[in-house]
Amino acid sequence: MINKLALIGVGLIGGSLARALRDAGHVREVIGYGRGLANLQRAVELGVVDRIETSLSAAVRDADMVVLATPVGSMADILGAIAPYLAKDAVVTDVGSVKGTIASAARAALGDKLAGFVPGHPIAGTERTGVESSFSSLFAGRRVVLTPLPETRPEAAARVRAMWQAAGAEVVNMSVEHHDTVLAATSHLPHLLAYALVDMLARLDDSREIFAYAAGGFRDFTRIASSDPVMWRDISLANRDAIGNMLKKYRAELDGLIKAVASGDGAKLETLFARAKAARDALVTNDQKQ
Amino acid sequence: MINKLALIGVGLIGGSLARALRDAGHVREVIGYGRGLANLQRAVELGVVDRIETSLSAAVRDADMVVLATPVGSMADILGAIAPYLAKDAVVTDVGSVKGTIASAARAALGDKLAGFVPGHPIAGTERTGVESSFSSLFAGRRVVLTPLPETRPEAAARVRAMWQAAGAEVVNMSVEHHDTVLAATSHLPHLLAYALVDMLARLDDSREIFAYAAGGFRDFTRIASSDPVMWRDISLANRDAIGNMLKKYRAELDGLIKAVASGDGAKLETLFARAKAARDALVTNDQKQ
Repeated sequence: MINKLALIGVGLIGGSLARALRDAGHVREVIGYGRGLANLQRAVELGVVDRIETSLSAAVRDADMVVLATPVGSMADILGAIAPYLAKDAVVTDVGSVKGTIASAARAALGDKLAGFVPGHPIAGTERTGVESSFSSLFAGRRVVLTPLPETRPEAAARVRAMWQAAGAEVVNMSVEHHDTVLAATSHLPHLLAYALVDMLARLDDSREIFAYAAGGFRDFTRIASSDPVMWRDISLANRDAIGNMLKKYRAELDGLIKAVASGDGAKLETLFARAKAARDALVTNDQKQ
Repeated sequence: MINKLALIGVGLIGGSLARALRDAGHVREVIGYGRGLANLQRAVELGVVDRIETSLSAAVRDADMVVLATPVGSMADILGAIAPYLAKDAVVTDVGSVKGTIASAARAALGDKLAGFVPGHPIAGTERTGVESSFSSLFAGRRVVLTPLPETRPEAAARVRAMWQAAGAEVVNMSVEHHDTVLAATSHLPHLLAYALVDMLARLDDSREIFAYAAGGFRDFTRIASSDPVMWRDISLANRDAIGNMLKKYRAELDGLIKAVASGDGAKLETLFARAKAARDALVTNDQKQ
């Protein structure tokens, strides 16, 4: 049970977490802080937060749980700003899609409060943003990865785990480095590939007509290219080593494909497509088993 | 109104067309031909076709409309096999995703029946196959591209147009070459990119764990990698010039992205992502206007 939750960033993720914790009776009071006043006021109207604060120091004062649900690029500054005002036993966690840079920022900023910091990442979301798009079941049945640091005290990790479980999520632990590699593969790389495709087509002379013939497959494939550009710029920069590594592996795969198409190597193409289909179909089967 | 429709290939596309034409009262009799006897028998049970024929010559005899709904790679052989048996005024069309190779095959195979041939391509489908997955509304509101040849007689094109309109589709005309370029961009390239991503990840050492963290964005992005490998091998070979061209443009785009990530060029990344998001969002807006 959380007595006072300080929610730094009340958007899709933060708002959905607050809604879920309220529904579960897992929180007594929710304080909202964010940069957009209109969004914060809407959060009060919607009952997502009890009240708002306009300074970080006031928002985190006396909070036993602080959740940073802001863009990855803003987290280092926020950690520095809240550090002096955190309660002695406050637990701090975040929802960033990259854990390495945030762990480094926490080590630099939090001093003797570092033991209360539990890096986290809910593997959930939509391409929409803002408290208006938040909903309490966003995390139901979804995975949340926690990457406790060697310095993290076990009780802090247990409290963050209990919070996400109350929100309906399945919580797993992972090392910071492993998280960033896995997410580079399954999330960051696909987003960059989708952005690259839409951008490439948008810059063609006849792009307007080309988009007019986009069917369902194209729409599914490019849906993630509607994601927030600033958020993805931040992620790309924060996880640049792992993403760069995956992009290069993908380019090598693409070069193989280009060669097979150019030489008309039907056997190679069929083998590659069949292997991919088997892996993709297995994904669906595993889901259905769960 | 079609008197006798010879449906060569009774799968998702062919089956859905037959269902739609029956619902619209636009066809009197549907004859099914295909390679899989179990699938054909199921088509009779489902009422998708009236009866089946086990030879191409019998299937097309006396048909006033012949629709080839088989994989792209099989169409040249089929055109050659049916040519001697086509009725004098028979109209022949196909549903292949590539039009250049099929137009060439028709020119080589059809002789004086070429004037009755109207290459076509319904921009619709799912990743499923077989008559079991067919449904009559598959083409409702979807585009069908016809690419009549200079040799095609206008009455033949008009009959194919009327058939697709009866199935609920919006019919547009395009040149063969332009069709193949547009489809390479919006359909063939995305399929190859999705196959490449899933194949690349499936070949990583920790692929099993990586796929376990695939979220909704990844699932949408890779759905088309569950498509039929033989069908996409055929398409890749049949449209290899246009696809090769698009793959190379994409590689150039990817090289720019790799460079921007490696150098930490946040401004370039944000510009690219924002441009892509604007183009993708416009796609949704245009749909909603329709």
